[in-house]
Amino acid sequence: MSDSTTTVAELRKLIADFVAERDWSQFHAPKNVSMALAIEAAELMEHFQWLTPEASRDLANEPEKLAEVADELADVIGYSFALANELGIDVSSAIRAKMAKNVQKYPAEKYRGRYERP
Amino acid sequence: MSDSTTTVAELRKLIADFVAERDWSQFHAPKNVSMALAIEAAELMEHFQWLTPEASRDLANEPEKLAEVADELADVIGYSFALANELGIDVSSAIRAKMAKNVQKYPAEKYRGRYERP
Amino acid sequence: MSDSTTTVAELRKLIADFVAERDWSQFHAPKNVSMALAIEAAELMEHFQWLTPEASRDLANEPEKLAEVADELADVIGYSFALANELGIDVSSAIRAKMAKNVQKYPAEKYRGRYERP
Amino acid sequence: MSDSTTTVAELRKLIADFVAERDWSQFHAPKNVSMALAIEAAELMEHFQWLTPEASRDLANEPEKLAEVADELADVIGYSFALANELGIDVSSAIRAKMAKNVQKYPAEKYRGRYERP
Repeated sequence: MSDSTTTVAELRKLIADFVAERDWSQFHAPKNVSMALAIEAAELMEHFQWLTPEASRDLANEPEKLAEVADELADVIGYSFALANELGIDVSSAIRAKMAKNVQKYPAEKYRGRYERP
Repeated sequence: MSDSTTTVAELRKLIADFVAERDWSQFHAPKNVSMALAIEAAELMEHFQWLTPEASRDLANEPEKLAEVADELADVIGYSFALANELGIDVSSAIRAKMAKNVQKYPAEKYRGRYERP
Repeated sequence: MSDSTTTVAELRKLIADFVAERDWSQFHAPKNVSMALAIEAAELMEHFQWLTPEASRDLANEPEKLAEVADELADVIGYSFALANELGIDVSSAIRAKMAKNVQKYPAEKYRGRYERP
Repeated sequence: MSDSTTTVAELRKLIADFVAERDWSQFHAPKNVSMALAIEAAELMEHFQWLTPEASRDLANEPEKLAEVADELADVIGYSFALANELGIDVSSAIRAKMAKNVQKYPAEKYRGRYERP
């Protein structure tokens, strides 16, 4: 029941069923879901806003704070899947396509240890 | 190679390998990744900002625009997985735990067709 | 004491004094303030996320909800001024310069009633 | 023509005239403007995302980058004023009211040099 044995479709169905059981698809216009997603991304960011980048890494060792962050991350990914559900986007294909583009855009030998834009 | 046959771990590895091959983990402090994620969420939202909610649903039938949205959604989920990679969060467990909470918080019979906060 | 008699500098000083009295400038690295600003913008957006665009206009006639929105808007502009304070940006000049560019970019006769990008 | 001699009302009128001359108020439902504002806040944040907090302070000494940041900040404040225009909010009163609350919430002697939540 972890990431190695769970398909993306299983998680998407979890969201789809939750929405269907409440008849909430009527509120899930992509415009609205994109707002909800951005709001959750901000709530996630809130956990890091006054920390130094280094201190933000230490969160991995603070179980209580890490659980809060995991909770917000679940909201972000949950709304991402809700949007994919509404629009009929295959997430795995979209990520594979995007990463193939990124590999072209940022050749490993050229961008190793450098983070500028091309 | 679609969502029904792809595990979350496979997609996470795609991101992890991309980051490792470029030695970019040094830039991926959770603070920074949370900013990148929020920025991508805003870019996704940009596709819907001046549309009515109804028109935002029609995007499902416009292949070219839908591909652009899928591209932005891939960025959002990609950075979500990058954050999970940095902090060692199991995404599937986090989503299952959050949805269990949501089922308690929003009982289906009470919230059917209603979208208020409890 | 309203917008017609208040200069931008007076409001900026209100923020600057608040920060100085708490010795908070040390936390106000532009990176951090830009995060705080984006978070407040998301909290503002939260008031509108499930409303139709039309219903969002009606908020002007609901004093209680309007006061909440005014409160969030004050946070957004407050952090905008905090950022201007840290970086030494003259807000009035920046807005005048940007609006002059916008007038060029969106000629009134061409964009009347149309909202596309050039 | 700087912040010390410019009233908030003058800047708001600059935005209001720009919108009126293009007949764009029809697109400026508060919901839409709140999205535009959050998107501009993200574009502002983009300038700082991969910088350390310290490096983000140095931007004050890089005229070219500072001009870009000033440009994005103008967009954020511009949309903030556009929202105030649509909803009839007096910005100066809202900021004064919010800062009075903040002074109560964060007493200077208690929060000097500390940035936790109450």
